[in-house]
Amino acid sequence: MRPVAVIGAGKTPFGAFPDLDLRALAVQAGERCLANGHVSPAQIESFYLGNFAGPSFVGQNHLAPYVSMALGIKGVPATRIEAACASSGSAFFHAWAEVAAGIYDIVMVVGVEKMTSQPTGRVTEILASAGDLTGEIRAGSTFPSLFGMIARRHMYEFGTRKEHLAAVAVKNHAAGALNPDAHMRKTITIEQALAGKPVAEPLNLYDCSLISDGAAAVILAPLERAAEFTEKPVRVLGIAQASDHVALDRKEDITTFPAVRMAGEKAYRMAGVSPQEVEFAELHDCFTIAEIIATEDLGFVKRGCGGPYAMEGHTSLTGERPINTSGGLKSKGHPVGATGVAQICDLVQQIRCEAGPRQVARHSLGLAENLGGSGATCVVSILGAA
Amino acid sequence: MRPVAVIGAGKTPFGAFPDLDLRALAVQAGERCLANGHVSPAQIESFYLGNFAGPSFVGQNHLAPYVSMALGIKGVPATRIEAACASSGSAFFHAWAEVAAGIYDIVMVVGVEKMTSQPTGRVTEILASAGDLTGEIRAGSTFPSLFGMIARRHMYEFGTRKEHLAAVAVKNHAAGALNPDAHMRKTITIEQALAGKPVAEPLNLYDCSLISDGAAAVILAPLERAAEFTEKPVRVLGIAQASDHVALDRKEDITTFPAVRMAGEKAYRMAGVSPQEVEFAELHDCFTIAEIIATEDLGFVKRGCGGPYAMEGHTSLTGERPINTSGGLKSKGHPVGATGVAQICDLVQQIRCEAGPRQVARHSLGLAENLGGSGATCVVSILGAA
Repeated sequence: MRPVAVIGAGKTPFGAFPDLDLRALAVQAGERCLANGHVSPAQIESFYLGNFAGPSFVGQNHLAPYVSMALGIKGVPATRIEAACASSGSAFFHAWAEVAAGIYDIVMVVGVEKMTSQPTGRVTEILASAGDLTGEIRAGSTFPSLFGMIARRHMYEFGTRKEHLAAVAVKNHAAGALNPDAHMRKTITIEQALAGKPVAEPLNLYDCSLISDGAAAVILAPLERAAEFTEKPVRVLGIAQASDHVALDRKEDITTFPAVRMAGEKAYRMAGVSPQEVEFAELHDCFTIAEIIATEDLGFVKRGCGGPYAMEGHTSLTGERPINTSGGLKSKGHPVGATGVAQICDLVQQIRCEAGPRQVARHSLGLAENLGGSGATCVVSILGAA
Repeated sequence: MRPVAVIGAGKTPFGAFPDLDLRALAVQAGERCLANGHVSPAQIESFYLGNFAGPSFVGQNHLAPYVSMALGIKGVPATRIEAACASSGSAFFHAWAEVAAGIYDIVMVVGVEKMTSQPTGRVTEILASAGDLTGEIRAGSTFPSLFGMIARRHMYEFGTRKEHLAAVAVKNHAAGALNPDAHMRKTITIEQALAGKPVAEPLNLYDCSLISDGAAAVILAPLERAAEFTEKPVRVLGIAQASDHVALDRKEDITTFPAVRMAGEKAYRMAGVSPQEVEFAELHDCFTIAEIIATEDLGFVKRGCGGPYAMEGHTSLTGERPINTSGGLKSKGHPVGATGVAQICDLVQQIRCEAGPRQVARHSLGLAENLGGSGATCVVSILGAA
């Protein structure tokens, strides 16, 4: 496997955009990415689209050629990958593998989701299709309720408190307020976070990520060719995808995600780094508890210590290991199929030192964790300066 | 790229199975495939699921780990690919690439679709999501009407007649009647085929493939390791995926599919064979006209000559180049996401000389063509005896 670099990155802002349909969002991100990487559509040799539920949200399927042809990328393999909220993380993983293995040189990945055209109740229903329809969902669960159970158990096992969850929300809103591309740009206080309207106890409104429209794109190339395209290549040091049960009730322990641990261990091994060496990270905070558990599963802290770790400020923009400097899914927004690639764009921005007021001091080694469902798919990527 | 072999293959029958849900079908095909290849679930290093519209047909998304975990395949990357009717052909292409490039040794691909739980009108609507919702579909087109226009234009340009279309239906029903796994096992006469109820003129009921439930699975390995698993490995000699416009109205000429031509040319080049050397084929006869055009686009006959080629018997079981010896999508059935891998299973069966009364005389070099939508995705695979 040869070294691979991200040579271009581009995103739409995340938010509610009634005038932009799924394809328009994907094309906007794709064109920004092509321009950023100084790549012409004709140079793309393979194209991936990460999308979770275009057919359910907007009625459109067969999405990869639908987007690639609109970008002027003709003829080449155009492949859509669906892996719930990890759809574009998985697409990024497969694009990386193609370049690393020498199958192609220049591969593009776009992630996109258009969610706000549906009412919230229907969005919740569509998201629930990433759970097990024959069991947990049939019994009435939704993702807020599944993660509510996870949070409750984490509290029971480790003494995690609502204040810990709220600390994650406050921190991510603080970062998102500084991100011009974030969906919700407002700071909140711990008191506000704790007083949010209940959603699925112990989770309230401020513990839940946003329903957003958006798209993100990156282009990968062999490291040895990166200088042809950009002065600021970013290297993919380690990456892995892992899987586990879709149904929460099939898991032995719901306070940890084996797929996250497996993907993390493989990615660390490939990169030759330890968790402690990771300087900053974008973690999949679909719910505040998910970020807390990710800091544990990825080895930043011991099991059960994720809550205090967040509350003590270690993961804030000026902390020892900033987490979700983009604002995370909580404040930046969570257009499901775009999230995995957007996290990569966020790492690239920090590593290139282009994050403006959110720029972190130590930015040469970043990690992205993209989670699908209640942990059935996870992709962990470790990026660094080339 | 190293040589790759199919070491195991397994399918469910195709039909309407009210007692088997999507996962049960996928697991049945997967288990037959594992047994056929003498592979244990723990040996699978990467898993692909080809599925078109599980979320719309049965409400279930996040399908790759949903199926892989049920097969006892734990932890490894489990990836769903959606490419309309070419979903599992594309999954097979990506699985092949992983093995050919040396990323993994043992990779499994399952294709599945559960369609009969929805009424026909809703099925047509779901299938239409593989077209362009912002244009052709919004204007009222469905796939029968799109292929109706294609057939009409082919008639106008080349003098193709309804009798030519009917000849394809009669031939495929004749083969399907001999296939114990086919959905519709009955022969029809040319008179019956011509007298079918109109669907979208000039296409009638006998020109349209079936709405079916079913699943198919194969396992790939490096050719050099094939003997560890099977005495009858089948080699992947050439394979390619290509893309084109989703919307029919964006195409310059609707009587030919550029994606089929491109994928065919690449696959022939990789295999080092000419179209004339292909001994038998499984072609994507979603509509009879599609088989006729495929015989032209793949170079078996000149443009415009596909109709007479079928009517003169050259493509029957005892003809010079048997096409759709399984019965094709027309008689075997067309559970959309299963079709691409099912075609591979059908080639494997012939190459292994296991097709019983349908066994063709020359069976050492077979081609499968899997088409998505009205030609936006195509995967062409060429298989031969190892």
